[in-house]
Amino acid sequence: MSLFTDEQLSLTTRLLARCQQLGFKIATAESCTGGLIVGCLTAVPGSSAVVDRGFVTYTNEAKTDLLGVSKPLLDKVGAVSEAVACAMAEGGLANSNADLCVSVTGIAGPGGGSDSKPVGLIHMSVALKSGTQHARHIFSGDRDAVRQQTLTEALKMMLSLLN
Amino acid sequence: MSLFTDEQLSLTTRLLARCQQLGFKIATAESCTGGLIVGCLTAVPGSSAVVDRGFVTYTNEAKTDLLGVSKPLLDKVGAVSEAVACAMAEGGLANSNADLCVSVTGIAGPGGGSDSKPVGLIHMSVALKSGTQHARHIFSGDRDAVRQQTLTEALKMMLSLLN
Repeated sequence: MSLFTDEQLSLTTRLLARCQQLGFKIATAESCTGGLIVGCLTAVPGSSAVVDRGFVTYTNEAKTDLLGVSKPLLDKVGAVSEAVACAMAEGGLANSNADLCVSVTGIAGPGGGSDSKPVGLIHMSVALKSGTQHARHIFSGDRDAVRQQTLTEALKMMLSLLN
Repeated sequence: MSLFTDEQLSLTTRLLARCQQLGFKIATAESCTGGLIVGCLTAVPGSSAVVDRGFVTYTNEAKTDLLGVSKPLLDKVGAVSEAVACAMAEGGLANSNADLCVSVTGIAGPGGGSDSKPVGLIHMSVALKSGTQHARHIFSGDRDAVRQQTLTEALKMMLSLLN
């Protein structure tokens, strides 16, 4: 029995096949999902042909050390923001051999929410060599539900940008 | 509903509590588990007080770039080996703010096995500032089963070394 849902595994299988067609490698730069995206990508046999590496940058310092996200930017806009999501994806692309890097930063809860940044707020980004896309979501449910929906949406975002 | 089993979440909760007592931070350096260990650690609310970062080093090049595992060592003994598991854990400790780094390298299958390194072979290591421990396992079952058992065993190994 897999950890991941049939939908997540089906999206992953399609994504890996599309990357193999394009000769693309994937990297991930995850905060609140904590490795679930790269964990799902590597659940599928043969993923080693596509998955280059994953950065799980839970602390701000890790975002700076591993992804080159600037400390002044983190101080100014906060880790859960469009600018940091984009900087994470671009940093992951720069610090890997990947052709695509997906990033996620958000508030999975139950703590850490505020009026302007509620629990369930997720910023995600996909950096390709041709440019960077961003999406903002607010997911409902508990910590697991937020992380699971974020994973599914990240897979969909990558797939849609490669099709 | 969580992605992870009750046993995995219970081990994680105990491990995070023990790390908080000790003032310890954790890093992970994962190959075949692909982020599941750090994904499980971060499934528990409050894990941000303990989890520093995770390195998912799926390729040999990622092991060298992010963890400083030497290319000659990888060429000589192969990625799935005691020496590389220990080098990954020690590299993760050196390249983070963590007090403990767990590493995993193995053959999750279904492909990639050989007589000397069968599917299900896992080398794992835990590096502390006081020294590095290693364990070798052969798990049965399919790719998911191997990854799940590896995750559970890695949690147990960390916990036992801190108790």
